[in-house]
Amino acid sequence: MAQVMGNVIVGQSGGPTAVINSSLAGVYKTARDRGARKVFGMLHGIQGLLEERVADLSKHIRSDLDIDLLKRTPSSFLGSCRYKLPEIKDNQEIYDKIFAILDKLEIEYFFYIGGNDSMDTIKKLSDYAILNGSRIRFMGVPKTIDNDLAVTDHTPGFGSAAKYIASITKEVIRDGLVYDQQNVTLLEIMGRNAGWLTGAAALAKGEDCEGPDMMFLPELIFDVEKFMNQVAEIHKVKKSVVIAISEGVKVADGRYVCELTDNIDFVDAFGHRQLTGTARYLAEKISKEVPGCKTRAIEFNSLQRCASHIVGRVDITEAYQVGGAAVKAAFEGETGKMIILKRVSDDPYLCVTDIYDVHKIANVEKKVPREWINEEGNYVTQAFINYVRPLIQAELTPMMVDGLPRHLRLDDISYGG
Amino acid sequence: MAQVMGNVIVGQSGGPTAVINSSLAGVYKTARDRGARKVFGMLHGIQGLLEERVADLSKHIRSDLDIDLLKRTPSSFLGSCRYKLPEIKDNQEIYDKIFAILDKLEIEYFFYIGGNDSMDTIKKLSDYAILNGSRIRFMGVPKTIDNDLAVTDHTPGFGSAAKYIASITKEVIRDGLVYDQQNVTLLEIMGRNAGWLTGAAALAKGEDCEGPDMMFLPELIFDVEKFMNQVAEIHKVKKSVVIAISEGVKVADGRYVCELTDNIDFVDAFGHRQLTGTARYLAEKISKEVPGCKTRAIEFNSLQRCASHIVGRVDITEAYQVGGAAVKAAFEGETGKMIILKRVSDDPYLCVTDIYDVHKIANVEKKVPREWINEEGNYVTQAFINYVRPLIQAELTPMMVDGLPRHLRLDDISYGG
Repeated sequence: MAQVMGNVIVGQSGGPTAVINSSLAGVYKTARDRGARKVFGMLHGIQGLLEERVADLSKHIRSDLDIDLLKRTPSSFLGSCRYKLPEIKDNQEIYDKIFAILDKLEIEYFFYIGGNDSMDTIKKLSDYAILNGSRIRFMGVPKTIDNDLAVTDHTPGFGSAAKYIASITKEVIRDGLVYDQQNVTLLEIMGRNAGWLTGAAALAKGEDCEGPDMMFLPELIFDVEKFMNQVAEIHKVKKSVVIAISEGVKVADGRYVCELTDNIDFVDAFGHRQLTGTARYLAEKISKEVPGCKTRAIEFNSLQRCASHIVGRVDITEAYQVGGAAVKAAFEGETGKMIILKRVSDDPYLCVTDIYDVHKIANVEKKVPREWINEEGNYVTQAFINYVRPLIQAELTPMMVDGLPRHLRLDDISYGG
Repeated sequence: MAQVMGNVIVGQSGGPTAVINSSLAGVYKTARDRGARKVFGMLHGIQGLLEERVADLSKHIRSDLDIDLLKRTPSSFLGSCRYKLPEIKDNQEIYDKIFAILDKLEIEYFFYIGGNDSMDTIKKLSDYAILNGSRIRFMGVPKTIDNDLAVTDHTPGFGSAAKYIASITKEVIRDGLVYDQQNVTLLEIMGRNAGWLTGAAALAKGEDCEGPDMMFLPELIFDVEKFMNQVAEIHKVKKSVVIAISEGVKVADGRYVCELTDNIDFVDAFGHRQLTGTARYLAEKISKEVPGCKTRAIEFNSLQRCASHIVGRVDITEAYQVGGAAVKAAFEGETGKMIILKRVSDDPYLCVTDIYDVHKIANVEKKVPREWINEEGNYVTQAFINYVRPLIQAELTPMMVDGLPRHLRLDDISYGG
């Protein structure tokens, strides 16, 4: 029988991934197994916590079957937020309020699953706890499809997004060969500042697929004229051309490529200016300027972060492991840390968890190193591919019910009950 | 030992599906097993045949493993075309040429996998053969994601596209609930004239998912003002709204909704005016006109016809069966016919193949009956769902190699070698 520990609270923050709920399952199950009295979930992260919107998770995750369904459920089970805490010195009241709510719930361990903005929350809360003599321990659990977290070898969520992108890139390449007609397909891929996902399109290349012809990452300045010349050259020798391009590529003057269009501005569902339109803009330009070149633009869209019907087993297992490791570390007294993944070996792939000071991770963006992009700036190198390949391995079959993947539903909670 | 039969030729035509190659596998394997001397493939359909671009398939499908990979390979393995034969009376020469090529290859059986345009090819060629005393037999094998072929209960390819659409609709609905913020998502779905695929989004609804809120099929005139009012009403009571809309919806004056935009015209990779933009147009309109309503537009795009990573087992099996049944019928002397599927029972689902006069199928479009759309015109009925549900059942696992679904590659043939 595990020793009885205090109460636990866990939240999810930032954009979801296909495996973010596997980390939640890892936190929940490990905390229960190790004797947590209660495990609460914040609804919509720290923002929901401020409104005392929490749920007793044992009422919603009732069985081992529920845990396995939770792992396979896309999008943040608890709901998410994009909320950055102010500096402690600027607004002590908000911290007092958070800690009062945590104390009321008798919380001793606080886990936050998120990216570098979310790690800023862990940093500030653990700093405040130390400054004010609170014994609550704060641990970060890494998550992001963008793979832009510092220190950790990679980030859970990236592997499944990369697997999804590589898989559908293969399918789209095949689709482009159907008609006996020259064509250019532009694939628009997520990742505003970091090109990890765009580069992952290169994994499509293999014995049965030639892979994309070029790819453009946001790490390098995008030269529209050079691009157009390259397209015209490839177009001369190749029937079907497929190009992967990051939604975040910018030209030399700092404008996003999608801002070069005349089309009206468009704000997305979450109030951000939409960056989509890069592929469409370039496809239209090619149609107009390259003689005989038919084009199409495909946005890989939100599916990149919610396609739980094709997740990687390595990824979903690691997502679970970082959740469990965070609980273990907190229960052993750690605070102000994030769980990281350390790669022991590339081939055979072996990765272990470790803990790391969150101050050195929060707010830092890890980009694709220049040497992992070819000199021409239009393809990733073999070193990039060797790094990503192990992360897309193996599968976790969805549980299919009546023809469709089954998810765990939060019932009333999803509307903040 | 099977009796030795004459040579066989098979082609694929029109838009691909995720299971079109399962029909090719069915034709190939059944023809071989039943004693065909040689099985040729036309490269890029009848258009390639006219240029004598054919391949001896036994050189490219070398093993049982190849056959199983072929079934799982998206997009037309042989390449496709969109080519309509002229009326026989208008251009006898082209028919003489085709039959001369077929005679040179010693073809006795001709199979064409396609939709209603392709069945027109079977109709004309079989008519010509009869008129001119040729003994070549012509059989149609049904295929289309659009499910718009007449007479047959449904069309192979539709079930997998419906399964894909329903699966990702579930994921997108879940994704829309992540932030605690009102939002409207518009899903743009293929099917220019028939709403079978758009209606399939309704299958997302189940114990673990509320399903989309509305759907608009091209069978009914689309009233933009009424639509805007409905969105505003739902938006008042529901945080996250998801609406499925066909790329082919038209307003009362006959214009497509995507033609109401000011954006520049855009011709797709295959020379057709692109119909995409319906969801984007409406999303922008909602953003501007419904206060506080954030929107996003998601085009399901070509993945609907090439997402072989999530195909239905019922569908892929039926695709194989119609291919095999066509060979069997032709070898028994039939010509000018198409294989149809006849549903014996809904629940438990049971379907058998039959043969039907292609003259009554070619060039006819089967639309969603009015009584399978609700009175309001914004949702399909339970009868529609009962019809589609059996067609998305069960799975065929991709063969995963190094983390990605493996396909059968045509090597040199894909460029017309």
